[in-house]
Amino acid sequence: MQDVSSLVAQAREGRPRAVARLISLVEGASPQLREVMAALAPLTGNAYVVGLTGSPGVGKSTSTSALVTAYRKQGRRVGVLAVDPSSPFSGGALLGDRVRMSEHASDPGVYIRSMATRGHLGGLAWAAPQAIRVLDAAGCDVILVETVGVGQSEVEIASQADTSVVLLAPGMGDGIQAAKAGILEIGDVYVVNKADRDGADATARELNHMLGLGESRAPGDWRPPIVKTVAARAEGVDEVVEALEKHRAWMEEHGVLTARRLSRASREVETIAVTALRERIGDLHGDRRLDALAERIIAGDLDPYRAADELVKGLTSTNPSGVH
Amino acid sequence: MQDVSSLVAQAREGRPRAVARLISLVEGASPQLREVMAALAPLTGNAYVVGLTGSPGVGKSTSTSALVTAYRKQGRRVGVLAVDPSSPFSGGALLGDRVRMSEHASDPGVYIRSMATRGHLGGLAWAAPQAIRVLDAAGCDVILVETVGVGQSEVEIASQADTSVVLLAPGMGDGIQAAKAGILEIGDVYVVNKADRDGADATARELNHMLGLGESRAPGDWRPPIVKTVAARAEGVDEVVEALEKHRAWMEEHGVLTARRLSRASREVETIAVTALRERIGDLHGDRRLDALAERIIAGDLDPYRAADELVKGLTSTNPSGVH
Repeated sequence: MQDVSSLVAQAREGRPRAVARLISLVEGASPQLREVMAALAPLTGNAYVVGLTGSPGVGKSTSTSALVTAYRKQGRRVGVLAVDPSSPFSGGALLGDRVRMSEHASDPGVYIRSMATRGHLGGLAWAAPQAIRVLDAAGCDVILVETVGVGQSEVEIASQADTSVVLLAPGMGDGIQAAKAGILEIGDVYVVNKADRDGADATARELNHMLGLGESRAPGDWRPPIVKTVAARAEGVDEVVEALEKHRAWMEEHGVLTARRLSRASREVETIAVTALRERIGDLHGDRRLDALAERIIAGDLDPYRAADELVKGLTSTNPSGVH
Repeated sequence: MQDVSSLVAQAREGRPRAVARLISLVEGASPQLREVMAALAPLTGNAYVVGLTGSPGVGKSTSTSALVTAYRKQGRRVGVLAVDPSSPFSGGALLGDRVRMSEHASDPGVYIRSMATRGHLGGLAWAAPQAIRVLDAAGCDVILVETVGVGQSEVEIASQADTSVVLLAPGMGDGIQAAKAGILEIGDVYVVNKADRDGADATARELNHMLGLGESRAPGDWRPPIVKTVAARAEGVDEVVEALEKHRAWMEEHGVLTARRLSRASREVETIAVTALRERIGDLHGDRRLDALAERIIAGDLDPYRAADELVKGLTSTNPSGVH
């Protein structure tokens, strides 16, 4: 078992193995989880977290890789968290990411981590924010959180970002899909990738229409830009970075960045609290207290609501979020 | 707002509208929910709860209807809870059930209720046991819980029964589907319906093989019978009732009935407790305490685990399962 404070110090120095080890500790809910999180807390809050969402085939990994290159040119340290809620694999990087991200594999200023579905605890909604904290504390200036698909869980993970980028590609029926998935409500910046293909202008126009970008807005409101890119040739990627910086500046000017981070922290606390309470209740299986309550219920002496009251009273005496 | 004790008294007298009203109160999590559940508690524990599960097309509604007829011939009062976790409809009976069950609609000794997916609270896993309690307290001797499909939620609901009946039909590839869904672990009685069709014997043989019924068992172990029926013509239905009675007698002899009911009551208490705690945490959105914790987190003064500890401490002071 490794010393947490020395691991954290090594991560701060930019040692990728220490970063990887810390992420493993937090996503696996290790016994040292609480210690790690306490050690990280004072070191967090510096990273700018960008979420990237879009249907399979729009070129998300390629776009992420191109963004990494653009940020590295500026000398920023970059973390990448590739999240696949539908994948049965967990831990380590997936082969596809490895291949597409391989140009950054030897760059000490880039951390790449894949996360996949976990049945354990609260799943990705629980694990992703903790991995972000590790990357933040390790000194990443920018963290790119790439999620696969546009389902509810992807939207939830994307909403943990400071800025959400929604990617589309021409001729994929993305417009309708996007509307269905509620993705039009989460994008701060829209990217039409593969813009060298037929239909890119039509996709951008349709998106412009659906977003109501032609309508007048109150002064100071954020108007999501639509950027066309060919990520595979790095075309338009600097414009995406510029749009992200503008959004960040706008958020800071209007207090939105703090508001979003407060909201993210609130949700994180809620998720941990609910998960911990659920685990504690689960731990009571075979516990004498629950058995005794069940006996009184089937004897008709007690209804399940009063039984739940009694159960909950016994749950919160010590260390309620003691996830192990 | 109606007086709960008079509603319960009317339900005991066999008034279907009072039963329907009580089910609506408990499944809708009305303000009177706790009062209703407390009033019902001493009246429960008499009904024999039978779960019926199977893929669409095996003839579940027809089989349920035929079982109702068979039990009514014995003079038993019967409750039917038709649960469809995949249906977007909620409350009241679905048209299909109404039609197939119409022969029992005017029988005062039969209560029929459909339940569908609810986003609210713990969903069907939360609402179904409470509806069962109402039917039990209303004096039903037998409660048939019919679930659509063989997915995880159906299996969970079926497992709330005293006895689980798994229905199959010839030539539907049910064998493989059943194995996948883990349905082979939950059946106490297997029914091959539509036994007048080709392949009924093959289905029964395959099932017999998969269940390992040819293997020797310890004396006293329950050996799930396989009954062939043509429910539309009521053929074999008396044999199903006989198999159910045998299973019930075996459970009573071996203490299994009490064990299953204790387990069911435990799960019910857990579900209520988890749901209530989750609701309470959800209620804290915008609450000053959660805001203050989030502020300390983004300032780096506090990690989310310690914040969750503080949050949980404030949750359990009064009426923890006060679902409204």
